[in-house]
Amino acid sequence: MPTVASLGEFGLIARIARMTPTAPSVVEGIGDDCAVLRIGDRLVLVSCDLSIENVHWRRSHALAESIGWKAAASALSDIAAMGGAPLFCLVSLACPDDTETSLVDGLYEGMLDAVKQCGAVIVGGDTTRSADGIVIDVVVIGEPVGDRYLTRKGAQPGDALVVTGRLGLSAAGLHALESDRGDLSETDSTRPAASEKPRLLRAHCHPTPRIQEGQWLAARPVVHAMIDISDGLIQDAGHLAEAAHLGVDVDQSMLSVDPDLMSYCREGGLDPYDFMLAGGEDYELAFAVAGGRSDALVQAFRGKFHTDISVVGTFTDAWQGVRIAGEPPSKTGFDHFRQP
Amino acid sequence: MPTVASLGEFGLIARIARMTPTAPSVVEGIGDDCAVLRIGDRLVLVSCDLSIENVHWRRSHALAESIGWKAAASALSDIAAMGGAPLFCLVSLACPDDTETSLVDGLYEGMLDAVKQCGAVIVGGDTTRSADGIVIDVVVIGEPVGDRYLTRKGAQPGDALVVTGRLGLSAAGLHALESDRGDLSETDSTRPAASEKPRLLRAHCHPTPRIQEGQWLAARPVVHAMIDISDGLIQDAGHLAEAAHLGVDVDQSMLSVDPDLMSYCREGGLDPYDFMLAGGEDYELAFAVAGGRSDALVQAFRGKFHTDISVVGTFTDAWQGVRIAGEPPSKTGFDHFRQP
Repeated sequence: MPTVASLGEFGLIARIARMTPTAPSVVEGIGDDCAVLRIGDRLVLVSCDLSIENVHWRRSHALAESIGWKAAASALSDIAAMGGAPLFCLVSLACPDDTETSLVDGLYEGMLDAVKQCGAVIVGGDTTRSADGIVIDVVVIGEPVGDRYLTRKGAQPGDALVVTGRLGLSAAGLHALESDRGDLSETDSTRPAASEKPRLLRAHCHPTPRIQEGQWLAARPVVHAMIDISDGLIQDAGHLAEAAHLGVDVDQSMLSVDPDLMSYCREGGLDPYDFMLAGGEDYELAFAVAGGRSDALVQAFRGKFHTDISVVGTFTDAWQGVRIAGEPPSKTGFDHFRQP
Repeated sequence: MPTVASLGEFGLIARIARMTPTAPSVVEGIGDDCAVLRIGDRLVLVSCDLSIENVHWRRSHALAESIGWKAAASALSDIAAMGGAPLFCLVSLACPDDTETSLVDGLYEGMLDAVKQCGAVIVGGDTTRSADGIVIDVVVIGEPVGDRYLTRKGAQPGDALVVTGRLGLSAAGLHALESDRGDLSETDSTRPAASEKPRLLRAHCHPTPRIQEGQWLAARPVVHAMIDISDGLIQDAGHLAEAAHLGVDVDQSMLSVDPDLMSYCREGGLDPYDFMLAGGEDYELAFAVAGGRSDALVQAFRGKFHTDISVVGTFTDAWQGVRIAGEPPSKTGFDHFRQP
């Protein structure tokens, strides 16, 4: 009997999409970062994001506030990926009935912080008992800003692949948590050798959705398609390529390696490019920019946001899927049902 | 340390509501069946509803299609409770990675049936691995029909408490499943003594949200407040009373006892009023109708829908909370964190 593991997350989504009828009011349905819906003469963006104990996070790895922040931030990042503005969130929370109230308070404080920082409010949800472990589902409702939003579709041959921020810190933070389990907490920065870890841990526990950056990019017609990097650059660049029936060639030498990531990897004999290419949960933006227009865009973006931004690849119609310097990648990013 | 069990579901919701800031665009926030949001010049209703394996349902009790149907129906019923029209649903689904694809297909078939029957479409969601058991969160987005929707607030002293349908069948269906575990399935109607059970099981596994009825009621100014009966009549009538800072007196002799429920209870030495007053998941509507106007409304409703409807109590400012024939109830309905 086939299982969801044999199908994989993206196989499962494709299967569900095939079963599901659509309607004229559904402008973008299953398969993009948000659904885009027409209600009256308005377009509404909606997305939801599950965050599950012992799958997405462990209680021993982070404070409740960080767990809550990240659950909300990862949902809000789906709105950033379309260049929209988040307006409202709903939170469905299931927890065992012996869960301490203070833990629930902490989860909500973190979610409320993230939601407020993105200009939205929590307006409802559901609470119930779980059989085992905490489950959080954050629903985000937003809207396009101006008359343009971006989807995963739209990259053209010759477009540049551009990413914001520095990649791999979140995955390295998770690696630090998993390998140092028990003697490492968010506040443990006392050991000299661990001096770079707090930044990696912060990247893992406290990602910032690129809401303003996404809106700025969506307003620029030279940006053709966008996604947030939740599953790792290879997978998410692959989603952009797949949606356009194109290939994308990633030039890893164009990725700037964060010094703390470099230092963490040197100490542990690790390859920083593994984290940068295949690590997930960066919640940076990856997007396609019209060929020849990326330098001007990158310069304008830097002037506006004082944030890293790098041209890291090129879309092509010469093949389909992702290659790294022309070769198929040996490592792929995170798949919820098929972990590397 | 206080836990969510000591707080109870409604205590937890009140605590979350106190922590949560609101905004002018939030017309109705945390605490009603749906949030009511202003987007541009439109009002949008949104709700979500968790359905968790071994909390809300067991795999051995129902077909996957029924589990999916009920997960969607219970979410859609929140829109019915405000008299709205459902438009779009999102489904967040977490399942262990050894879950058979056919089970996921069945869940979606059931959800798609329920959503279609209510005039909506599934437009997105999230899928991920769970550590243990299946979790479904159904988000429903709808809108008011015409210029009026109902909330839990608004009952006035002297208003009649009115309910649609016959109560207690779903809870009796669950009782049949729990007590006959192993030798009873949805298709087992072969034993003469079990002849009434398929209807009870159907009520439990395949509830119908009262979408049309809710819209019809919301269009009538004599209807002041409404809720769907998910937690049992006593609790849900109590929510209507509490929202209006009133009391409500339930006259159980006015409840019509379903013959199959009566027969099931007689056979087992059970009291049908326990199921009718405290049993949950009927997904019927309970509402407050202006004093002296309920007979005409009941007659018009029967003419329109050919469905049971009963005046079963009166709102009063003489006390607060629920009484049954003037006495505090000895049994209360289902509380997700404090089961009776």
